[in-house]
Order: sequence, then C-alpha cells, then structure tokens
Amino acid sequence: MIRSTLALAAAAFALTALAAGAADAQQQEANKKVVVEFYEKALNQKDFEAASKYLGSRYTQHNPNAPDGPEGLKTFLQFLKEKFPNSRSEIKRVFADGDYVIVHVHAVREPGTRGNAIIDIFKLENSKVVEHWDVVQPIPEKAANTNGMF
Amino acid sequence: MIRSTLALAAAAFALTALAAGAADAQQQEANKKVVVEFYEKALNQKDFEAASKYLGSRYTQHNPNAPDGPEGLKTFLQFLKEKFPNSRSEIKRVFADGDYVIVHVHAVREPGTRGNAIIDIFKLENSKVVEHWDVVQPIPEKAANTNGMF
Repeated sequence: MIRSTLALAAAAFALTALAAGAADAQQQEANKKVVVEFYEKALNQKDFEAASKYLGSRYTQHNPNAPDGPEGLKTFLQFLKEKFPNSRSEIKRVFADGDYVIVHVHAVREPGTRGNAIIDIFKLENSKVVEHWDVVQPIPEKAANTNGMF
Repeated sequence: MIRSTLALAAAAFALTALAAGAADAQQQEANKKVVVEFYEKALNQKDFEAASKYLGSRYTQHNPNAPDGPEGLKTFLQFLKEKFPNSRSEIKRVFADGDYVIVHVHAVREPGTRGNAIIDIFKLENSKVVEHWDVVQPIPEKAANTNGMF
C-alpha cells in the first residue's frame, strides 16, 4: 500500500513536471507571436500606437543609439517614418527560450540597398515586451564565402 | 470497455507527446553545453584541434569575413592566435530552440578596448555544430541610454 502510494506520487510528480514543460513550450510559441507582431507594427508599419500595445510596464533599451523606454521607441519610429518611410525589416528566423525571443532580421532602409543584418533579443514578462538588445552589421558588398549572411 | 481503452490510448498519446517535449528540452540543454565548450576551445583557447571535435560533417559559414568550412575556422583561429593572442570572448547569455543555439557575446580583441557586441547563431545536428551565422557591432564610446549593450 505504501509502495503503491509512493509510486503514484512519483508518477504524479513526473506528470506535473512534464505538463509544466509543455506549458513553457506553449508560452514560448505565444511569445514568438507577440514579438513578430510587435516587430511588424513597429518597424514596418512604423505605428507606435499599435506597437505600444505589446509593451509592458517598461521598455529597457540596450541599443546604444536609442533613448531608453517607450518614448525612445516612439522617437525612433518617428525618425524612420520621416527619413526612411520605405524601410523594411524581414524576419528570417525566430527563436524562443524561457522569457526571451530572438529574431534574425534583414533590414533595408532604402529599397535596392544591401541593408543590415540584425539579431534582436527581446525579454517578455506576462506576454509583453519589456527589454531589448540588438546587434547590427551592414551587409558587405563582398564576402569570403558564398552562403550569404542569412 | 471500448471507452476505457480509448481513454487509455488518449492518455498514452498525451504522455508520449509530453515525453517527446521533455526529450527536446534535454537535447536543447545538451546543445547549449556543446556550443559553450566549442566557443571556449575555439575563441578563447584558439585551439582548432580541440574545437574541431565539436564540428559535424560540415561547417557552413555565414560570417562574410570567414571562408566556408572547417578550414575557414582554422585560418581564422590562426589569425587570432598571431594577431590577437590575448583576445577574449565572454558569453553573456545562451539560448536554445530546436536545433539552434544562440549566444550573446562580448568580444575584446585587445585588453582594455571596448570590443564588439556579437550575437552568434549555431545550428546543430546530432549534437555537432554544422552551421554558423553572426552579427558583429563595435561597442560605441557613447550611448543614448545608460543600460549598456548587454
């Protein structure tokens, strides 16, 4: 009797752990969707009002060219809208792990130019974007291999 | 009888799916370890022989400055060893999703300089590194926020 109760308890524990893992996976897929939509509203539509619905109580900015917070994003999108209205960001890959979503992006400010390779990291809390890091590199004219940057 | 058999089959199916998810999570943790060790052997120890043990049957290179394949990595590590023997790469964050591992890195070629922010994406097959993308950006002297690039 004790043995079977212990076995049941162990099985219940294992199931709970497995179910928690499945819930994590589901949350990560949901987080990817949040970031992809946020990116589209912000970088392509350049619509701060629409993009800001995806932001949490803070937007901690690590891009060294952007001021901190939602106001920094607003200023940046206004700049894009005025100077590069036809700029386009195409997400090539999206990953999620824990509270983080990572996107690999080809961003072109003026159509017909090579543009930049960008990898962004977003942190989410309660399905909202709260922090952002990125690394940006201009795509060179010539490369030492034929594989492209994506 | 049929009803309970169906219920059992459904439970078994759900358990199989949950267990597969758990196996994926375990593989992703193992992949992170592979990439962190590969990075240390390659970029810090600059030991191509040791690093090459982590490579699979190919090493498809998307960094535009590096020639394709394991030979390209060998050439690059030789260059680092000769020109920047004290260069250090510090992994700040590591993520995994599916077959991919992503690392956010602070790389300093000459001690005392600001260095570069780098995000690398590695693809793994059978726990071996087979493909690499990265984006590299020099850390600027001044920034529009006080959060740092990491």
